[in-house]
Amino acid sequence: MKKSPLQKARAAYKPKLPVVLTGAVKAVEGKPTQSVANQEEIHQLFPNTYGLPELKFEKNANPTAGKPVNVGVILSGGQAPGGHNVICGLFDGIKKIHRDSRLFGFLMGPGGLVDHKYIELTSAIIDEYRNTGGFDIIGSGRTKLEEKEQFDKGLEICKELGITALVIIGGDDSNTNAAVLAEYYKSIGAGIQVIGCPKTIDGDLKNECIETSFGFDTATKVYSEVIGNIQRDCNSAKKYWHFIKLMGRSASHIALECALQTQPNICIISEEVEAKDMTLDDVVNSIADVVAARANYGNNFGTVLVPEGLIEFIPAIKRLIAELNNILAENKEATAGFDADELEKFISSHLSEENAATLRSLPANVARQLMLDRDPHGNVQVSLIETEKLLSEMVGKRLQTLAAEGKFTGKYSALHHFFGYEGRCADPSNFDADYCYALGFNAACLINAGVTGYMSSIRNLVKPSVQWIAGGIPITMMMNIERRNGADKPVIQKALVRLDGAPFLKFAAQRDDWAMNTCYIYPGPIQYFGPTEVCDQPSLTLRYEHQGK
Amino acid sequence: MKKSPLQKARAAYKPKLPVVLTGAVKAVEGKPTQSVANQEEIHQLFPNTYGLPELKFEKNANPTAGKPVNVGVILSGGQAPGGHNVICGLFDGIKKIHRDSRLFGFLMGPGGLVDHKYIELTSAIIDEYRNTGGFDIIGSGRTKLEEKEQFDKGLEICKELGITALVIIGGDDSNTNAAVLAEYYKSIGAGIQVIGCPKTIDGDLKNECIETSFGFDTATKVYSEVIGNIQRDCNSAKKYWHFIKLMGRSASHIALECALQTQPNICIISEEVEAKDMTLDDVVNSIADVVAARANYGNNFGTVLVPEGLIEFIPAIKRLIAELNNILAENKEATAGFDADELEKFISSHLSEENAATLRSLPANVARQLMLDRDPHGNVQVSLIETEKLLSEMVGKRLQTLAAEGKFTGKYSALHHFFGYEGRCADPSNFDADYCYALGFNAACLINAGVTGYMSSIRNLVKPSVQWIAGGIPITMMMNIERRNGADKPVIQKALVRLDGAPFLKFAAQRDDWAMNTCYIYPGPIQYFGPTEVCDQPSLTLRYEHQGK
Repeated sequence: MKKSPLQKARAAYKPKLPVVLTGAVKAVEGKPTQSVANQEEIHQLFPNTYGLPELKFEKNANPTAGKPVNVGVILSGGQAPGGHNVICGLFDGIKKIHRDSRLFGFLMGPGGLVDHKYIELTSAIIDEYRNTGGFDIIGSGRTKLEEKEQFDKGLEICKELGITALVIIGGDDSNTNAAVLAEYYKSIGAGIQVIGCPKTIDGDLKNECIETSFGFDTATKVYSEVIGNIQRDCNSAKKYWHFIKLMGRSASHIALECALQTQPNICIISEEVEAKDMTLDDVVNSIADVVAARANYGNNFGTVLVPEGLIEFIPAIKRLIAELNNILAENKEATAGFDADELEKFISSHLSEENAATLRSLPANVARQLMLDRDPHGNVQVSLIETEKLLSEMVGKRLQTLAAEGKFTGKYSALHHFFGYEGRCADPSNFDADYCYALGFNAACLINAGVTGYMSSIRNLVKPSVQWIAGGIPITMMMNIERRNGADKPVIQKALVRLDGAPFLKFAAQRDDWAMNTCYIYPGPIQYFGPTEVCDQPSLTLRYEHQGK
Repeated sequence: MKKSPLQKARAAYKPKLPVVLTGAVKAVEGKPTQSVANQEEIHQLFPNTYGLPELKFEKNANPTAGKPVNVGVILSGGQAPGGHNVICGLFDGIKKIHRDSRLFGFLMGPGGLVDHKYIELTSAIIDEYRNTGGFDIIGSGRTKLEEKEQFDKGLEICKELGITALVIIGGDDSNTNAAVLAEYYKSIGAGIQVIGCPKTIDGDLKNECIETSFGFDTATKVYSEVIGNIQRDCNSAKKYWHFIKLMGRSASHIALECALQTQPNICIISEEVEAKDMTLDDVVNSIADVVAARANYGNNFGTVLVPEGLIEFIPAIKRLIAELNNILAENKEATAGFDADELEKFISSHLSEENAATLRSLPANVARQLMLDRDPHGNVQVSLIETEKLLSEMVGKRLQTLAAEGKFTGKYSALHHFFGYEGRCADPSNFDADYCYALGFNAACLINAGVTGYMSSIRNLVKPSVQWIAGGIPITMMMNIERRNGADKPVIQKALVRLDGAPFLKFAAQRDDWAMNTCYIYPGPIQYFGPTEVCDQPSLTLRYEHQGK
């Protein structure tokens, strides 16, 4: 592997561990826990792992000698910066327990456990990946661990390799599955601990005990870098409106954080659109109003941040999609041989009047996409809709109307961007490098403490990393019952943007100013070697949430 | 202006001047120069500014006291990182000549000179913009200075403000216009010097005397950062082919530099496509062959870099577009009221057999775009074609054919990216910060030397900046006669990628390896504060060109 100069220099970085983890630790138990909702149902589903106490690590003056432990690690789902450092921290952690401990990496996600595909992660391999982005050390995948058969196949290979603990690095769904796996292995006395680590650039896996998921910090800094660059271009040329879509379908944390970092003219927050029951036209008109108002001052340029999941948050469209999916599911056979035109006709004649009206309000190509593009399960493929182009096109039409009414006299020309893959595998920021390393090292401590069904928890994150607090949180504590694919399931509650939360309130208090006045901030690229105020700041979301407490 | 921590820290950076410019200088004349071609015609067109000698600055042990000078500065054309530092260097340079010197910035490009829109750039303003990206200090624009009337309007405001020198920061066309303006002002004895500075991220303004244009270094580093991140994602998920289009219509320097930095599986170089008289199908098939070959080893993923201008370099399409433009120009009235279908029919019936065949070989939507989308001059809008999607779609079709023949058994799923605006206004790298500051400071020295029609020249750029050589090059020296919009014109010769040049040869020698083996390099973000091997390296293009000499 030929390395860039930065990779070489960065390999020497030593992540700063919380001071408590630098020596021997003991796990101190807090009070027994409850799930965030549906306590009885969750308890019934997790009889062996429900209600466990929170754990906090403290210095241990009289440690006992550790024994070698064989651990398996899995990267699950979409990439997030810092995943390699979780594995490096885990490796160093189990080696500290005993130098004969061994780490096995299952390949290409949870499927590797089921299919018995793995490599042993030696120190030679680990050292190649310290402080790097990507999940390429063992690859990732989206196989869901949900079936007993998968669990039993996993158990086989664990027995074969002498593995007594699995660490699953993933988002909310993967950690839900980790909890189910932990419960199952405990119920059959398999002797295999399962520990989760909170990963996702989307930032929607967080709660009272998990302050942030790893990768969010780095990814939003990369997006903010390029958004800032585009804004500087926008403010130099003064002739384009840039519509910038940002990854994150389930929540708008990424868009909100980037807005706080860069102060664009407009940022749409899906959760607000939903809460206010806004239609797509409402969203479009609100953008067009800002375009028109800026044009009054000769400013025919601006930036609009759009969360990827917007369409699915608009209540009217959500209802339309739900009915579309129902119609298609219920009439699978009747519509089997239909061509596009026949299918459109069929759908139109079966839609309720309200949803038909919503469909008619959409541009023709988007309406067609909703009706015709299906995923393998027959569902509408919302992710294929280029929301940023949809919005800019509809804004253009709206401006024509305003112009005809004499309410818009400016020029309007739009450019489009989508940022997602640019940030998921970036080299981790100092924050993520430290946080991930600590999460992995801490997972080793949880293994050593003999627990299962816990998520590695590092807290106090707005403080310098040496002051961070280390411990473990029972995964069941974060769960509630939700309806998924027509069935009630225990799942980790997703953290959406809270409209009463400090980050959103900060944004809401300033956005009118940002809209009319050009208040762009240019964050620039992530720095690793400079002054601490440049290199070591956690996300503004984290900082404001902390201040808001 | 609220500033990011990096902006604040970066404001303190002191660009490193070539040591010769740190004290008083004298201009040492070299031999008289010749234009690169068409010497007689160029001489006739530039009787007052042709054949001037190259200038080199040397230390001056006996300087005479300088007099205050009023200077106007113009940013022309597309943004490039470092433009602000050219202005800062110019400001410091004329202040060093005499502290009562004044700098005026014409607003929003050359149009500001003609329309008398300007601000005085005081030290308070200048200090806000040191080492920052963007052209927002005075804005930029694309008005072309070509008409005597414009020159005379410019002269008016210069007289009014006591301006005796103009510095035009621009690409090849803007510097061509600077040469014409210099000649005109000299011919009428206006007493106004004109100095050019070589700007363009495209890297196509360079020659024996100008080693690189500013902005190329930073922009390609930003693109390489995000390409590297995407490659790491690609190599982690192992399931997508990423087609990445890069800005640069006239030459493929950006794509080539990014390929050298990141080692993608495939990089198309337009100049090679043209030289080999490749068709679009040839390009598509060459990509499909790599996709199929990688699939044989289970690698259903990869990256393809595509220069923005590819389509216009494909000889067959170039001929098609030329005939389309001719047909439309010659039949403007006959086709005036036509709707899309009528126009398509008309065009098809008028095309030569060869070009009609080329048109038929294109996907329907692209063929329609070529026939129907027109710019205000009636020309085909090639820039609207999403080349990255066109290629990936055609590759997909080709793979279906290969699959039917049993020659492709893999999976193929494509994602698309276009990077351009992300890099044009980035904070300049140390290289560009130093280079631009030196270009501007050196422009002040050229003004002090009393010359006109020169381009600011800083050479020896692969050495540390203190060792750089400073001087001036007569702009006419870079000119030849080219056919533009149906007329012969004196223009600066564009520097295309040389297929016998060291950067291309380095790429060509390795690309088969990169195609089959996954050799990605991950450059990471531009660093400003770290070790010199990370922070202070010029582009690989520059380094290889230097080694190749």
